[in-house]
Amino acid sequence: MDIPSYMVGVGKQARAASRLVARADTATKNKALTLTAQAIGRDVRRLLDANAKDLDAARNAKLDAPLIDRLTLTEKTIAGMADGLRQIAKLPDPIGEISELKQQASGIKVGRMRVPLGVVAIIYESRPNVTADAAGLCLKAGNAAILRGGSEAIHSNQAIAACVHEGLTSAGLPATAVQVIETTDRAAVGELLHMNEYVDILVPRGGKGLIERVMQESRIPMIKHLDGVCHVYIDDKADIEKAIRIADNAKTQRLGTCNTMETLLVARGIADKVLPTLARIFRDKGIELRGDDAAREIVPGMKPATEEDWYTEYLAAILAVRVVDGLDQAIEHIAVYGSQHTDAIVTEDAARAQRFLREVDSSSVIVNASTRFADGYEYGLGAEIGISTGKLHARGPVGLEGLTSLKWVVFGNGEIRT
Amino acid sequence: MDIPSYMVGVGKQARAASRLVARADTATKNKALTLTAQAIGRDVRRLLDANAKDLDAARNAKLDAPLIDRLTLTEKTIAGMADGLRQIAKLPDPIGEISELKQQASGIKVGRMRVPLGVVAIIYESRPNVTADAAGLCLKAGNAAILRGGSEAIHSNQAIAACVHEGLTSAGLPATAVQVIETTDRAAVGELLHMNEYVDILVPRGGKGLIERVMQESRIPMIKHLDGVCHVYIDDKADIEKAIRIADNAKTQRLGTCNTMETLLVARGIADKVLPTLARIFRDKGIELRGDDAAREIVPGMKPATEEDWYTEYLAAILAVRVVDGLDQAIEHIAVYGSQHTDAIVTEDAARAQRFLREVDSSSVIVNASTRFADGYEYGLGAEIGISTGKLHARGPVGLEGLTSLKWVVFGNGEIRT
Repeated sequence: MDIPSYMVGVGKQARAASRLVARADTATKNKALTLTAQAIGRDVRRLLDANAKDLDAARNAKLDAPLIDRLTLTEKTIAGMADGLRQIAKLPDPIGEISELKQQASGIKVGRMRVPLGVVAIIYESRPNVTADAAGLCLKAGNAAILRGGSEAIHSNQAIAACVHEGLTSAGLPATAVQVIETTDRAAVGELLHMNEYVDILVPRGGKGLIERVMQESRIPMIKHLDGVCHVYIDDKADIEKAIRIADNAKTQRLGTCNTMETLLVARGIADKVLPTLARIFRDKGIELRGDDAAREIVPGMKPATEEDWYTEYLAAILAVRVVDGLDQAIEHIAVYGSQHTDAIVTEDAARAQRFLREVDSSSVIVNASTRFADGYEYGLGAEIGISTGKLHARGPVGLEGLTSLKWVVFGNGEIRT
Repeated sequence: MDIPSYMVGVGKQARAASRLVARADTATKNKALTLTAQAIGRDVRRLLDANAKDLDAARNAKLDAPLIDRLTLTEKTIAGMADGLRQIAKLPDPIGEISELKQQASGIKVGRMRVPLGVVAIIYESRPNVTADAAGLCLKAGNAAILRGGSEAIHSNQAIAACVHEGLTSAGLPATAVQVIETTDRAAVGELLHMNEYVDILVPRGGKGLIERVMQESRIPMIKHLDGVCHVYIDDKADIEKAIRIADNAKTQRLGTCNTMETLLVARGIADKVLPTLARIFRDKGIELRGDDAAREIVPGMKPATEEDWYTEYLAAILAVRVVDGLDQAIEHIAVYGSQHTDAIVTEDAARAQRFLREVDSSSVIVNASTRFADGYEYGLGAEIGISTGKLHARGPVGLEGLTSLKWVVFGNGEIRT
């Protein structure tokens, strides 16, 4: 296969399809989503067979257990895919809505219309369910999609793509509105990263290695997720019971997610009231604590934290703990060591909560709740294409809106500029 | 001067200042703007003297007349700068506003807060008034600014910067919130383009050469303006009088602006009713017409248009004219040859207007008014940092909002995720 010319073909077809999807009405898009869900429900056997091929190859290649776990489809995950598409069909259609329409002095009326971005390219790793999920979100937002999944999931992804194509064409939309790259050749990714003419936005989803490669090689605008060094700050005006509950949940509900707390900051005035209890809870759950001197005085036996610890996203059963003088030092610590992802304050003092909200420059800033809530579903977006740690266009959990843009619309009655 | 270390210093100071400006309240920011306007009003003589140095150097270097024209300050343009800053002071402060606050099933309330971007770097060419304008907009939006004007305007820009610094410090804000690069060494621009750590967004303002250099060299997100190949489509259901007025204004009100019409599309059914009159108007105003065969049949003596003409942004007294079958072909022409800047339809048919609005993928889509309206002031933004031809973050005329971002804010009462 001639990869460059194959990829240019994919790009051209996506661009052409994007114009048809952009003007599709809500009923047509929802029909495509629902028919895809039906096809997936009907083809469970075929999807499992395709997945079995990928799993065999993965085992032969001695891929590691977590990867094989992410690669595996079951009747339940397949039903979940179909259900996800039906949920996307139920979400309000963002496209075409005109907002902020205002009459100007010249007589023209000026507003903004929500429109699709055009062509969205998503590069992801082993989970095949992303194929259905991403296809559904792009379609609902009126975009064409180019999907490049992990090479180890190629048979599963092709089988899911067949269902998507059936849904699209049965609804009268072009199958090329969702293209799954048919080759596992890594050169295809290299081409994709340079298809500025055909791709309006890139969404790399996966490990940091993937994101960094995409950032280094591509100049296409992207929605990307880097680090999640998330903090909980327990203020000295915190409700102790809430503070303990939130800090516990933020660290231990799941260890490996990007919105898990990695550093706990505690105000000096309350440290001896919350740290001993929290230390007991964390140790019972197998969390290793690494503290500064003040924390280690209160909780004997805690390992000392190094400068490196404050910067680290453990994604593991380790927590850094620092005692701070109060709100100012907490905000300063987060500004220096944080990753602008998600940070929470526990306090009953409204003015301090307000300052934390305003001054902490993170994509999610939380008062009196767990950092684990930073998620598209928990925020009511209905679905999520990813979490953005960038500041432009889309920040934090990104749903349908992040896959759209606003253009200016002007209604006149023969007005001219003088 | 050691340019790399000077520029790193500028970046670090900007980052530090950005945190102070971000938390400044509206009254403080407005005070800085008003005091800067006062200082400019008081220093007219000093600004004209500084400008005279730049003009002498420009004449000695035999720079061309349009450049010298753009470089020139007068009492009137200086009063305009001060007035612009007072206007910015009057605009509503976008920062801190919380919108879309909604209660979720878990009990948390989730909304979005408008926040500054951080550090904005603006690279511009000869006009010194951009210095005051850009400083004012960045400050009002809570950002620190790094300004790199044209080297030929260095004395004028420094004199304006002195007024801005006086305004900032008198209001209790750091002078480093607005830094004007003190060297004319072009290496400073090279450094700036790679200061990803210190610069959140780049705004290149100037000729296509500058924009292309910035796009090629920098990976910092940017608000940029490329081509403006703008169209007016006169539908066969157009009001003839409006059509003629709009097409005339769109081309001739100013020839060199990005929202000037470059190609006129006319529906076959109305071409012989509007083209002869329009051709007379355009010829009287010295506009050269280049048409397709059908247009040349109606207007004898018109030069033939080549394929190249349809792609061209003349910014000059030339207009391409094409007769199309109707709406579909007009939309298709704009999709193929347009630059997604500003396109207008003239029609009395609501359904066709609706299709044009929805299907033309440009930053401004206009019904029955001149393309010349695509402008921040005409759209009611109060001020404009530029016009973006990109689709992400900010599209079309960009005012204060484009210099801000939305972060998620969550209000809880001890909620944890289960």
